[in-house]
Amino acid sequence: MEFTQNAKDPGCGARLGVIQAPHGRVTTPAFMPVGTQGAVKALMPEQVRGLGADIILANTYHLYLRPGHRLIAEMGGLHRFMNWPGPILTDSGGFQIYSLGALRTISEEGVLFQSHVDGSSHFLGPESAVEIQEALGSDIMMCLDECIAYPAGRNEVERALARTARWAARCKKSRTNPDHALFGIVQGGVYPDLRRRGVEEMSTIGFDGYAIGGLSVGEPKDKMLEILSCTAPLLPENRPRYLMGVGTPEDLVEGVFHGIDLFDCVMPTRSARNGLLFTNHEKVVIKNARYRDDGSPVDSECDCYTCQNYSRAYLRHLYMSGEILAMVLNTIHNLRHYLRLMERIRDAIREGRYTGFRNLFLRERPSVVTEEGSVAGIDGGCSPDK
Amino acid sequence: MEFTQNAKDPGCGARLGVIQAPHGRVTTPAFMPVGTQGAVKALMPEQVRGLGADIILANTYHLYLRPGHRLIAEMGGLHRFMNWPGPILTDSGGFQIYSLGALRTISEEGVLFQSHVDGSSHFLGPESAVEIQEALGSDIMMCLDECIAYPAGRNEVERALARTARWAARCKKSRTNPDHALFGIVQGGVYPDLRRRGVEEMSTIGFDGYAIGGLSVGEPKDKMLEILSCTAPLLPENRPRYLMGVGTPEDLVEGVFHGIDLFDCVMPTRSARNGLLFTNHEKVVIKNARYRDDGSPVDSECDCYTCQNYSRAYLRHLYMSGEILAMVLNTIHNLRHYLRLMERIRDAIREGRYTGFRNLFLRERPSVVTEEGSVAGIDGGCSPDK
Repeated sequence: MEFTQNAKDPGCGARLGVIQAPHGRVTTPAFMPVGTQGAVKALMPEQVRGLGADIILANTYHLYLRPGHRLIAEMGGLHRFMNWPGPILTDSGGFQIYSLGALRTISEEGVLFQSHVDGSSHFLGPESAVEIQEALGSDIMMCLDECIAYPAGRNEVERALARTARWAARCKKSRTNPDHALFGIVQGGVYPDLRRRGVEEMSTIGFDGYAIGGLSVGEPKDKMLEILSCTAPLLPENRPRYLMGVGTPEDLVEGVFHGIDLFDCVMPTRSARNGLLFTNHEKVVIKNARYRDDGSPVDSECDCYTCQNYSRAYLRHLYMSGEILAMVLNTIHNLRHYLRLMERIRDAIREGRYTGFRNLFLRERPSVVTEEGSVAGIDGGCSPDK
Repeated sequence: MEFTQNAKDPGCGARLGVIQAPHGRVTTPAFMPVGTQGAVKALMPEQVRGLGADIILANTYHLYLRPGHRLIAEMGGLHRFMNWPGPILTDSGGFQIYSLGALRTISEEGVLFQSHVDGSSHFLGPESAVEIQEALGSDIMMCLDECIAYPAGRNEVERALARTARWAARCKKSRTNPDHALFGIVQGGVYPDLRRRGVEEMSTIGFDGYAIGGLSVGEPKDKMLEILSCTAPLLPENRPRYLMGVGTPEDLVEGVFHGIDLFDCVMPTRSARNGLLFTNHEKVVIKNARYRDDGSPVDSECDCYTCQNYSRAYLRHLYMSGEILAMVLNTIHNLRHYLRLMERIRDAIREGRYTGFRNLFLRERPSVVTEEGSVAGIDGGCSPDK
């Protein structure tokens, strides 16, 4: 995997780059639609690509349990299985297992957990996390990490941070094929010095890229932004930086400001299925009676298929009637909203005006975060983006 | 509406034709995908068109109740509302109301019924059935008819037949715009002489086309075929003939044999959502464990997007995981199976070999009808193709 930086904003950490992965190029900063179970919910891969996605994320935990990584390997790997020819990043399963709560036991060896599907017992350690991701044929694999809920005492966070470092070293050691890039994950809770230590430990081991994990797990937004702003700039300059499971459009803008290159979140897809549609100006809760006879598109500034062809009145009708097409059209819109934002972000960096773009964006933008949305990272845990 | 016959099979009633409707041409014999609530379930209109559909069906009953025909008229009519630019046939609501059972009272004036959505009371008569369909902007409207369950005594069937004729005359009289074609519906249960009477009454009133209603409502298959074979040939030769709510691929082949031009049925779409996939050679119940590691497409002879890009193993995984994409991909396959059958039927008629085609088809074809599928007409009643 190659990472090239093509531009850097003069006023902040924002940078424009290209990741050359085995299955194609990713222009960064990039948002990765979430394809938890080997499908971006409700969409065909060509649609996801057409919306502007270079890369998608899939979940090791879910695919390991169902249909199984060995089956997927037999079927020619995940790309072929799901008909997505582009790059795929797979998470390690650590976050999903953290979300299982009482259903798992963590030891130095790894995690013993019960399947959320059928209750069967399984073990996932650093080595098997890599083995599974290699079997899937991932372009970018994630190390197994120990994610801690918020709030957590310093001792607990420190202990998990140390284990995450030991697991990361074991992950790196167990790789069998350099074609699959491997990213280390920086934990450290809301303690800036522990985050700094996490960055140091990960860069000492040395990875193809670095992720910030354990944010958007329930901490206040300003705490999240504080940790983001003090951690991201410490990450090695010449490697991609990935902010895991985050977040709102505002979070993406802030993440880029601090030098993040990759994002993923279930928010656009899950919100779509719940009838919450993103625009630059207002929240559209499509079931609201006010949209009953609203002949205008969801967002008159949006270039997506949904906005070009359907009224809010029709989308409301589909949603109220329980039509599957509601999920499809809403997902198209929300994903396009996110991916178009990334295009605007990249344009702004390319033109050296990202700081201004960010300031204007945050000033003009209403919060479109719902209560549900604001903890998307958490309930995105072991539930397959449902 | 113009109907032109371009070829007739020398050995049977099969005919090839073209319906020129206000919103486009329909090459017949044609199968109409069902878009009950203003959407062919799980698909975008461009996909439906791309699968080979010239015309779709929508349901007056459902659209009247939700979102309401006046709203749809305000939004520019059903074509614009749902983004389907081609011809639309709307049923009258008679069949859905028949399916409501205890929730409706039929009188000479019309039907008093309770909404299956919210229990509210509504009245539908011949005049309002036409008014609603005109408001929707239907290309082909259906008369309100009184459909009778099977079995029913001769007296009851005769009484309903007479009322259907009186209602048909009122429907015709209440039309305000000749751009919307109007079809009469022949009832008469399983009594050949009553069916003959129904044909005579309808042709005396005179319609743009004629439908056979009240079949596939629970009668044995051989009874259905008997009534079809003795009714269809009596219908006016120079008008389109529509067999309502039927049926299996075998039924379509038989219907065409007896001179039918139009069909609709929820079977391909509903079966798809239930994981039953049609092929020419076998039933594919996609959840079956035997498909777990089956890397072949659903149907290696099928040219659809699903068969070109996905394995049975992947479709099984999506289905077992409850992914919306399973519904999309399965629907694409089943609809394409039906619409490709219609293409083969039209080719056979064009080439003067339909009788041979039909005989071979019925000999080679395994029955892919499930118990659920065989009564698709019935449970397709007031349930919106769920």
